[in-house]
Amino acid sequence: MGGSLALALRGRCRSLVAVEPQTAVRQQALRQGVVDAATDDLSEGLAGADLAVFATPVRTTVTLLDRLPDAWPDGGTVMDLGSTKATVVAAMDALPLVFGAIGGHPMCGRESSGLAAATAELYRDQTFVLCRSVRTTPAAELLARAVIDTIGARPVVMDPADHDAIVAEVSHLPALIAAALLRVVADEDAWDISASGFRDTGRLAGSDTRMMLDILMTNRPAVLAAVRTYQADLAQLEALLLGADEAGVAEWLAEARVRHAAYRRHFSTRPTPAKYDSDG
Amino acid sequence: MGGSLALALRGRCRSLVAVEPQTAVRQQALRQGVVDAATDDLSEGLAGADLAVFATPVRTTVTLLDRLPDAWPDGGTVMDLGSTKATVVAAMDALPLVFGAIGGHPMCGRESSGLAAATAELYRDQTFVLCRSVRTTPAAELLARAVIDTIGARPVVMDPADHDAIVAEVSHLPALIAAALLRVVADEDAWDISASGFRDTGRLAGSDTRMMLDILMTNRPAVLAAVRTYQADLAQLEALLLGADEAGVAEWLAEARVRHAAYRRHFSTRPTPAKYDSDG
Repeated sequence: MGGSLALALRGRCRSLVAVEPQTAVRQQALRQGVVDAATDDLSEGLAGADLAVFATPVRTTVTLLDRLPDAWPDGGTVMDLGSTKATVVAAMDALPLVFGAIGGHPMCGRESSGLAAATAELYRDQTFVLCRSVRTTPAAELLARAVIDTIGARPVVMDPADHDAIVAEVSHLPALIAAALLRVVADEDAWDISASGFRDTGRLAGSDTRMMLDILMTNRPAVLAAVRTYQADLAQLEALLLGADEAGVAEWLAEARVRHAAYRRHFSTRPTPAKYDSDG
Repeated sequence: MGGSLALALRGRCRSLVAVEPQTAVRQQALRQGVVDAATDDLSEGLAGADLAVFATPVRTTVTLLDRLPDAWPDGGTVMDLGSTKATVVAAMDALPLVFGAIGGHPMCGRESSGLAAATAELYRDQTFVLCRSVRTTPAAELLARAVIDTIGARPVVMDPADHDAIVAEVSHLPALIAAALLRVVADEDAWDISASGFRDTGRLAGSDTRMMLDILMTNRPAVLAAVRTYQADLAQLEALLLGADEAGVAEWLAEARVRHAAYRRHFSTRPTPAKYDSDG
């Protein structure tokens, strides 16, 4: 996510500095011209910056936000790209007044990672959620919106709790149901006769474990609620099948198909969610 | 499926005749040159034929197989393209000795339908399961294999019960978990910030209801077993989340990712499952 952001901003801002602990990744970023400079030191990377963007797993972002007053005493504007927002925005709320901070979450897939997967087009036409903190100054929001505009995304302001409840359903639940599918259908003989439906339904099982763990542990109540609602719905189907209730099964299936058709219509007048990765 | 088969066989067999109850579909098939002739009468369509291929929902195929001795007294070779095989093969077992019959199931997706979605390339490099009945003569199997070879697919012979148990896992379960996702996440505000992961995980919710109903009602025990195993796995995750068992959640996620990587490696040396449709 960070690499793609740098590529999308390249040549359109004064200077781009990567703060990255891994030497090989820093060298790669410099070699490929993704950034103008790279360091493993947070203070060094932030010195003289206007904007710090955290493209780290959610709980790493929270840890770094806690360190920010020491690492960047002059302050500046702060945003992030994390998949859950309540925890991050709470950490932003606690920043000193020299900071302007706003939470961000670009909705453009999650399961590929690393500089090799980075592309300047990742964010184009995609929804970019903004969640205000008590440290969101007008200037900070303007700068965040300028970044979003520059990378071609569409900003949508949401309450952090609302965001977390919705992404539990549209993002975290799909990742979990894909993961469960690969856990229970793990036989090579079965894969041998599988078709594209299995591949696509299970694609998100390839999501980065560390990132998913941060997502689940910082959004537990909403994810639990989504998983329970989902299981209750499958249990309803199970009961209908057990009772050989053909009319009931037909109705259950028809409702899903109607919703799917409505979902497709919903995107017939706006950009379709992009599939940018090749990781599934 | 039938339209794509006709397109793939066009010019490579003596004559193609469609038996189709809908006048508009017959006219379209003739106008587009998909078949040489079309009729709504089973006897008329079968007169003089070498091979009858049923591209109908499973229970329609069973009904038609029951009518076959009357409709086609001279007999011939029979195969089908249905998604479950035990029921169809049992009906084939009951055919008179003038028939040679073998069950077929091309594994190439299921959720688009109609002549408009037909393509001669549908079956290329895809697995085509064959399930022998007591009416499978060597000549019947040879003819079925010639068809599969002509359309570019790869034949795999399986026991009907084994086939049904495996497709319950790799095909029917994915369709149901996609359907449940669209049933419980049906809010336009949620869709607005959904990305490609939601779209792909939910794609099979668009599967044809009638076809799915036939599949589920003819493969109930295997589908129920698959749904239960799946629910138990999700329940395990739910318990880990409820207990905030971070190590347990990490292990659950890591196992899914390992399996997904193995699944992708499995297809790194053979043709990837094709996505032929645009229905999701």
